[in-house]
Amino acid sequence: MALNKTVYIGPFIHCESLNQLDICTNGMIGVGEDGKIAFVSRDMKGRQLPAQEGWEHAKMVYTRQYGFFFPGFIDTHIHASQYPNAGVFGKSTLLDWLNTYTFPLESWFSDLDRAARIYNRVVARTLSHGTTTAAYYATVHVPATNLLADICKSRGQRAFVGRVCMDRLSPDYYQDESVESAIYDTQACIDHIKHIDPQFDLVTPIITPRFAPSCTDETLAALGKLHRDTGLPCQTHISENKKEIELVKELFPNHDSYTHVYDQAGLLTPKTILAHAIHLSSEERSLIKTRQAKISHCPASNTALTSGRAAVRTMLDEGLTVGLGTDVSGGYTSSMLTEAREAIFVSRHVAMESGDEAKLSVEEALYLATRGGAQVVGLEDRIGGFEVGKDWDAQLIGLDGVGDTVGLDQRAGLVEIFGEETWDEKVAKWVYTGDDRNTMAVWVKGRLVHSRESFKP
Amino acid sequence: MALNKTVYIGPFIHCESLNQLDICTNGMIGVGEDGKIAFVSRDMKGRQLPAQEGWEHAKMVYTRQYGFFFPGFIDTHIHASQYPNAGVFGKSTLLDWLNTYTFPLESWFSDLDRAARIYNRVVARTLSHGTTTAAYYATVHVPATNLLADICKSRGQRAFVGRVCMDRLSPDYYQDESVESAIYDTQACIDHIKHIDPQFDLVTPIITPRFAPSCTDETLAALGKLHRDTGLPCQTHISENKKEIELVKELFPNHDSYTHVYDQAGLLTPKTILAHAIHLSSEERSLIKTRQAKISHCPASNTALTSGRAAVRTMLDEGLTVGLGTDVSGGYTSSMLTEAREAIFVSRHVAMESGDEAKLSVEEALYLATRGGAQVVGLEDRIGGFEVGKDWDAQLIGLDGVGDTVGLDQRAGLVEIFGEETWDEKVAKWVYTGDDRNTMAVWVKGRLVHSRESFKP
Repeated sequence: MALNKTVYIGPFIHCESLNQLDICTNGMIGVGEDGKIAFVSRDMKGRQLPAQEGWEHAKMVYTRQYGFFFPGFIDTHIHASQYPNAGVFGKSTLLDWLNTYTFPLESWFSDLDRAARIYNRVVARTLSHGTTTAAYYATVHVPATNLLADICKSRGQRAFVGRVCMDRLSPDYYQDESVESAIYDTQACIDHIKHIDPQFDLVTPIITPRFAPSCTDETLAALGKLHRDTGLPCQTHISENKKEIELVKELFPNHDSYTHVYDQAGLLTPKTILAHAIHLSSEERSLIKTRQAKISHCPASNTALTSGRAAVRTMLDEGLTVGLGTDVSGGYTSSMLTEAREAIFVSRHVAMESGDEAKLSVEEALYLATRGGAQVVGLEDRIGGFEVGKDWDAQLIGLDGVGDTVGLDQRAGLVEIFGEETWDEKVAKWVYTGDDRNTMAVWVKGRLVHSRESFKP
Repeated sequence: MALNKTVYIGPFIHCESLNQLDICTNGMIGVGEDGKIAFVSRDMKGRQLPAQEGWEHAKMVYTRQYGFFFPGFIDTHIHASQYPNAGVFGKSTLLDWLNTYTFPLESWFSDLDRAARIYNRVVARTLSHGTTTAAYYATVHVPATNLLADICKSRGQRAFVGRVCMDRLSPDYYQDESVESAIYDTQACIDHIKHIDPQFDLVTPIITPRFAPSCTDETLAALGKLHRDTGLPCQTHISENKKEIELVKELFPNHDSYTHVYDQAGLLTPKTILAHAIHLSSEERSLIKTRQAKISHCPASNTALTSGRAAVRTMLDEGLTVGLGTDVSGGYTSSMLTEAREAIFVSRHVAMESGDEAKLSVEEALYLATRGGAQVVGLEDRIGGFEVGKDWDAQLIGLDGVGDTVGLDQRAGLVEIFGEETWDEKVAKWVYTGDDRNTMAVWVKGRLVHSRESFKP
């Protein structure tokens, strides 16, 4: 589908550095037919047409009232298959949660009709939350995993799609039969994505050992080899829960640590996404840094399942690369805006123990949700901010002013701008009180992939 | 305004005890012309008219799809005047937050036009979140405080409206001039509410010393006397922040504890609402229990301002009475549903330190938000659940099913019912993923006080 040249006119905001937003209140961004940013102008005067040659007939998209353009969110850890359980976890913790809620649900995905209903829903919903890129876990099932890739491709969401590998400590009704079948099925999903998106322009396969306890040494090693041979990224969980860590010690008695298990399998590389990373020792963090593996911080899930509090400030100070993940359905929300808020709140609880420097600011949480996530998925040259040459993966945020009348318009969401707010305060109000109603439109690679019913492009 | 007799037909859910919901899937509740529940039927067969004599011509209100009736929420601590700052707090903690954000904002309320805009908004918004009763802090200003009472009365929200007293450690531009003026102005607000609602049917004045550090001994004592003489309830803050507690020690060197300061002023009684109560000693909790004073737990605020984690389980086990408060704008949200969720999450962080028994369940959080709140504001005989003789303070919750089609309807909110959920799971999904879009209609004393644009009564 050919795109029109489009000029996006109005304020734009993105992250300049970990703790600094770049707020351009009078901006104009031109996006070419290839979906890439062709120019960025910071001093748009009035509403005149852009001066650039060849852009005279470009389509124009304007912000309204207190709106602004913001980079799309990057969800670095989400189980698409667990979406129907969002909010259903009781008082469980990781290991009983898996058996009580998660494995039974994931086993549904042998049924393609059910899979279609759920996967369509999760992709549509995360797009509506402004998630332009997601690193998905599917299930063990090849046809359903391929369907998830198809849905991402057709709906236009940038995605990493992983067929889950697990050949032990799983229920009989839901696991890989052997090392060979785990590899064979993983390869089948890789082949399918190569078929629908040969250059992995939008959808990329990702090698996905569920986590060390549910994989034998042999499967981990075979997946490590596949990771090396294909050059494809990999994703897994690490150090989420203390009982899980004990279990890893029992299952892998000859390894120095949980991190070493992955390292020795060849699964700790610059293309590895490690979710949670709550209880890592400083030696483990140091090894992760040496290998340049990446961290997906999942605060909503870590709180909900009482897993613990990841020391994000420590990881950042040590030079680790950190992004955010919703971890549906350990996490109750598929919204990365909510996740950014939860990252701030969990950092407050860390600060109660270890001091104020642990606190994450609004700016930092937004950085993790965009630039940080881009680094985690290895796409920092293509997405995460508004620079010439990057893809237009963006969302239009709408914030409504409170008029002098007293009527509420619930369709406009909960953010209330009274008119005295600075730009920093407007952004803070969005982060703390905003939701999907404020995401008016979403683009990936320049293509409109979601819009509110009230948005007229 | 005369009410019609109305019969509410469909599932209803309320709290049977702290950890038990009463889920009636086939219910019918009749509400008389006085706004009180006249009968409750648990086995409505089909959709036939109620058999009770005199109800043949009653109006009927039905739930739809996965909807249910639920008691209105009771917000036991909210600063109406701070509403424009919801989400604006940076990395501050209590004492700098007061000076940086709060006192400047509250000083605006000398301007009645501004007050009207903000107070109309906060009452409309909290109603839209299903808050049928709120214990409000206003500001020092008499006309604006009276206006808040007027707005609650006209919009039909049950409210406790407190004119804030503070005669020291406040900015010159925003404090009481003397003990006498604090009492005089408080009396003026009491008189106004007596004038508009002589029986305090809907709106009740509440005596409101801001907190011990901003009140002299003399003012506290005078307010204690007023509390005793009038029999009106009182509300204040206690033990929110460690620096605040140090300050109280300095300011009141002859008192045994923060709690004793209020006790000796005559402000610790069965009609006292104490917000926060995070760092209380067991002696203080014991004194509060002896005096039968009530606790408003404000988890969202306590996390946002890094105040600490209140040990709710301990307080409940010790027999204290606990409700929830949004504490806008230390709390970022005016939604009691979100507050219930935050109570659960804060309890998870308490559990990380002190063990699993600290965890609050969905049922317990909902209890605190309804029955617990009713006890805190002294109205447990009138609101908080669905029993004959209680007022119909209720909300109609709508949850949408996920169809076989793939279209999202964002107007319906974020709760997704796939159809396999138990009732407990539906309620959990509402608590964790719901928002104001699921509150289809709200009634106070039988009067419809809010409805979604799509609700047809």
